[in-house]
This record gives sequence, C-alpha cells and structure tokens, in this order.
Amino acid sequence: MNAVIDCLMNHRSIRKFLDKPIEPDILDTILQAGTRAATAGNLQHYSLIVVDDPAKKRAFWDDEMLDAPTMIIAAVDEYRLKRWFELNGAPFYFDQISNLLIGYWDAVIALQNVVVAAESLGLGTVYLGEIISKDMAGILGTPAYVFPAGCVLVGYPDESPDLRPRLPLEAVVHHNGYRIPTDDQICAYFKSKDERWLLLTEETRQKFMDKGITNWAQRTTIGHYTQEFVIEDSAGVLRNLATAKFRLTLE
Amino acid sequence: MNAVIDCLMNHRSIRKFLDKPIEPDILDTILQAGTRAATAGNLQHYSLIVVDDPAKKRAFWDDEMLDAPTMIIAAVDEYRLKRWFELNGAPFYFDQISNLLIGYWDAVIALQNVVVAAESLGLGTVYLGEIISKDMAGILGTPAYVFPAGCVLVGYPDESPDLRPRLPLEAVVHHNGYRIPTDDQICAYFKSKDERWLLLTEETRQKFMDKGITNWAQRTTIGHYTQEFVIEDSAGVLRNLATAKFRLTLE
Repeated sequence: MNAVIDCLMNHRSIRKFLDKPIEPDILDTILQAGTRAATAGNLQHYSLIVVDDPAKKRAFWDDEMLDAPTMIIAAVDEYRLKRWFELNGAPFYFDQISNLLIGYWDAVIALQNVVVAAESLGLGTVYLGEIISKDMAGILGTPAYVFPAGCVLVGYPDESPDLRPRLPLEAVVHHNGYRIPTDDQICAYFKSKDERWLLLTEETRQKFMDKGITNWAQRTTIGHYTQEFVIEDSAGVLRNLATAKFRLTLE
Repeated sequence: MNAVIDCLMNHRSIRKFLDKPIEPDILDTILQAGTRAATAGNLQHYSLIVVDDPAKKRAFWDDEMLDAPTMIIAAVDEYRLKRWFELNGAPFYFDQISNLLIGYWDAVIALQNVVVAAESLGLGTVYLGEIISKDMAGILGTPAYVFPAGCVLVGYPDESPDLRPRLPLEAVVHHNGYRIPTDDQICAYFKSKDERWLLLTEETRQKFMDKGITNWAQRTTIGHYTQEFVIEDSAGVLRNLATAKFRLTLE
C-alpha cells in the first residue's frame, strides 16, 4: 500500500544478531524518530537510555541468546521536569498514578517509533518485557521519578523468521461498544494457538503431558507464565515504583 | 532518509478535522497495522475499540473542538485470554500489576502503529491522555480485566500546524547510565519553553501574572496541570483499575 504500511506489516521480533555495531548516525536517527512521537502536553515525560556496555547489559540479562549490540530502555522520567519546576519556583506533584501511566504511554510510544525507524533501516529488534521488574536504578543510577517502562534490543539481524500469526482482526477490534465473544468465537479466535500444540513433536508434547499440561492455553499459563513468575515480576515492579517514588494511592 | 523516517519525523497532532469519514478499507488497514506491533508472548493483551457514534464520543468528551469522525481506544484486555484459559482448564492470574503494565505497553504500541499507519495515508491524529480516567466500562460496556490505556482521534486534517519543538536529543538520551543534568543544562534544555512565555501577548502574560504565574514552568503546573486535576485524574484511574479488577498490591 505504501512503504510505511509495508514496514509495519512486516515486523518480526529478532532474537539473533550479527556481531556488528549500529553506526552512530543510524542510532542518532532512530532516537530522533523516537522523540518525534506525540507526547502529553509536549513535555516528554521519558528518557531513552542506550546501553552498549556488555557488563551493564549482562547486569540486566545474563542470557547469551540476547547478544544484540545495543539495548534501548524507555523510562518514565518526571525527574527532569521536577528539576525544571524547582528551578522556576513551580510546585511538583507529578508523582501520582495518572502521571505514571501517562509517562508510561509517552515512553513506550517513543520506543515504538524507535523500533519502526530501526526496522525501516534494516535493523532488527525485540522487546523485553521483564525490564519493568529489573533493578534499573541499581544498574544505571536513575534517580527518583524514573521508572523502567520498556526495553528493546537492537542490532543487525542474523535470522529471518516467518511472520507470526496474530488473532483475527475481529477478535481484537470492537465497534461502539465491547462485544463479549461467545465461547465458540473464543475457540475460533485462538485456533492458531491450538494448532501450535498439534505441531509440537510427540516427545515435547509428552513432556508437557507428564506435567499435566494438555493444551496450549495450559502451556501458556502453568507451562510458561507461571503464577510464581507473575508474582515475582509484580514484586519487582512494586519495588521499582517505590524506588521511583510513584504513588499507587491518593493521600 | 526513507519514507518511514520521513513519516515519523513529520508527526503533528491534529485537532481540527474535515467532516469526512474514514473509508472502511483505510480503517481496516490501519487497525491491521496496529495488530502487527510486537506483543508480549504473542498473546495480544489488548483490544482496539473504534467509536464513531457521535453520542458515544460525546459521552467521553463533550468538546466541540474534538470533531474527528473516529476515536480509537486501545484497552488493556486480559478478559479474552481469561475466557480462553477457562475454556481450556487453565488457571487465570493475569490480574497483577505486571500484567497491567505489560498489557498497557502492548496496547499503546499497537495504537502507535495505528497512528503511524494513519499518518502515512494522509490522516491526522491526536492522543487524548484523559481516557485513563474516563468511565469506559459505563459507556462501552467493557468487562472486568479491560482498562482504558490509550486513545486517539483520527480523521482527515483541516489544519497543517508547524512541527512543535522537542527537547534537544541530549536532554532525553543517556548512555550506559543516567546522567543527572546540571541546573545550567536543565535551563538550556527547556529554553524553547521559556521562549514560549516571551511570545505570549502582553495581555495574556498579564492575565497569568495576575494569578501569580511568572514563567512557563509555573504556567505548566499551577496554570494548566493543576494539583487538583492530577488528583482527580488519578482518582479516575484508581476507579477504573478497581472496576477492571487489576491488583496494585501483592496478596
């Protein structure tokens, strides 16, 4: 349809990267594209933190698979505005849950622009969700009012995976109201997941079944995103919110 | 540099729209582009709700200026997964703060893809941050585990505003650690804001000064995003989180 739509429609997450750094002017361009995203009140409630020091990267993820040359963290950042306010005799109270969420929104749409710009220039990316529970303040020295919202690895791809199936559009899109799907519709929407279960080797399927896992929905929860994982991740988020001094209640 | 970078670099928020509906195939294309964004675990923890019924739009915002033909809400949606899990005998515990934030991230990067796709096709957009505190469940009948993450108005532009200045890149980008800016750096970063104060008419500036507002930082806080507004917005967010049954504490 046009080059922009083509770029968006062809997104794949890349998990294997060439050992080749990103050229400084390319990095600069994708970061500039990030900062052109819309931003609440034109106030840019975020920072973008580029991490290419291998030791710092490993402090976040000790995972050899994540061998990208560059990691970019998008952080909610109200610290910069706070200092500007203080220097101008203006009060600061942007530490409430609405500020957290608007800052989160600001940060990740800037990061999505970085991703789209990167892919248009032949780079590959993958989002790492667990950043929200990592000790960013300890590793990168972020001050209060800065919270890790999003993270991507960026580098030149060393793989070209197939497009992954998405739910059919009618599963995700509603019109003038939320249409509660019927059970049959739910089953139809998630058919591509059920098919993944059938594509597993007999051996892998047996391993899951030995753990009482008999379908892809169970594999998604008890076989992957366990309750223990979700609770641990949430504990990390709450620690980070306390460190960043964002309030979750009105007082 | 390329058509994608050009599109991203040329974003303007549009607040005045032609009285011309979006063609169904164009709407379909931009929504499809939204669903191709990366998504945590390839699980699409969001829904996109298209609102073009004028009465529903007005139920959210009774504002004549917001005359776009179409509003698109990106909502965190764990309800659909919950039903899939239930129908497959899998447990549901995706109601924790980590699920809320990952769903929020998923929802708004899909929405940013919608925005980029829309702009590439000649449409204009504007984000409306206050959606997070609006009574979406009351207006659109969203069930538990669905929370309003983001919102844009979309339509054909009836204005062509100038690019708005952003903070210099070095204000927003950090490298292998958070660099605490000096006071002088903060003042330099926000120079374009101070210039806006000087560009106000004598009359407007006098009106602010009558309220004790003597610079743009004070105009931003006590003159615009007042403490009362932030608290009220946050109260709405907390109401929506309670309605959507997301937990803000571990228990």
